[in-house]
Amino acid sequence: MKALKISEAVVRRLPVYLQVLNDLRKRDVQTVSSQELGNKLDLNPAQIRKDLAYFGDFGRKGIGYDVSYLIEKIRQILKLDQPLFVALVGAGNLGRALSNYSTYLKDNMKITAIFDAHPSIVGTQINSLTVLPIEALKATVAELNIRVGIITVPAAEAQNVADRFVEAGIEGILNFAPTILRVPDEIRIHHADFTTELLSLAYYLDKEGDELNEPSMD
Amino acid sequence: MKALKISEAVVRRLPVYLQVLNDLRKRDVQTVSSQELGNKLDLNPAQIRKDLAYFGDFGRKGIGYDVSYLIEKIRQILKLDQPLFVALVGAGNLGRALSNYSTYLKDNMKITAIFDAHPSIVGTQINSLTVLPIEALKATVAELNIRVGIITVPAAEAQNVADRFVEAGIEGILNFAPTILRVPDEIRIHHADFTTELLSLAYYLDKEGDELNEPSMD
Repeated sequence: MKALKISEAVVRRLPVYLQVLNDLRKRDVQTVSSQELGNKLDLNPAQIRKDLAYFGDFGRKGIGYDVSYLIEKIRQILKLDQPLFVALVGAGNLGRALSNYSTYLKDNMKITAIFDAHPSIVGTQINSLTVLPIEALKATVAELNIRVGIITVPAAEAQNVADRFVEAGIEGILNFAPTILRVPDEIRIHHADFTTELLSLAYYLDKEGDELNEPSMD
Repeated sequence: MKALKISEAVVRRLPVYLQVLNDLRKRDVQTVSSQELGNKLDLNPAQIRKDLAYFGDFGRKGIGYDVSYLIEKIRQILKLDQPLFVALVGAGNLGRALSNYSTYLKDNMKITAIFDAHPSIVGTQINSLTVLPIEALKATVAELNIRVGIITVPAAEAQNVADRFVEAGIEGILNFAPTILRVPDEIRIHHADFTTELLSLAYYLDKEGDELNEPSMD
């Protein structure tokens, strides 16, 4: 059977489902309907059923989804049932904020090394980690079996950090610097530039003023 | 003529186009082809032409797009040709990082007020702004004509902040707290939870291990 190609949009919704399901489990909720999930997420229940059907036949008619079972399944699909180690470069405010978030992640994904280029920051502590010099990146990635890199340096330094990650053999990059980075095709890169979210939000404001002049589709 | 419904995916790509075009203009590049844009963004040139055609007939065959003209047009579409004021609640590491980013934004979108609930943080300076007490939110939003709110507080406090934003008459919210928030339908809310990006990145790693058990689509 041909491997199923799952759209990016669906993959991006899975962590959101996971978050809601984890909340439900915390409150000892054992089953949930697509209708209830839809209410919580502002998504059409049919959309949710379709998303989850990609991965197997989880739900049962009239009963809904078993919360714990669905959590297990989504974690498997996202490969969160195995440890995944992450390195972060750029120990400024954003880097520190993400490190704090990371300690909340119960999902086997852990920031296990933090690097910075500035001598005044190298050697300081963030949570339980000591900030390492950027020169130690390659050796540390190999030693700690790190597969994902997070970039939280200024835009002008970001490509250099990306190149170092690629050279170190990292498989995926999450880039927070507000710039486009070039990496080889086999490296997966996600951009998490908050300005993109903020600027696209502007588009949706002031709906009454929505007059586009002569929209043309040709 | 019926108003054109532009897909969210297209709207989210526009700020990325804008970023690349601003970079080009900085380097005095005057025209750019969809092919060159495609190379920079890892997007199919046909996709780029299609995206931009939604908004009018910008490109010319054999010449490409006029960089400055396209920047103007995209800024108009995103409504960045007029000032848009933003408030941020939560002056921790993430809030500070975003405030720093914001000073780089040349796009009329400005964080003009920062709030926090903690007495030890209220009154401190971030860039040129003094952190205000959360109780001042409603009056300040009205006074400064703020239309967008950014939430960078811990998950447990986020819904309370969202409620305050809604009560203050804000039109759009960018939420960084790792939790789902409920707001009235007329408020536009974007979630910028970095864990979603990070967890969906995990899915794409280790392609050889991509065996899903009996995918079913029914």
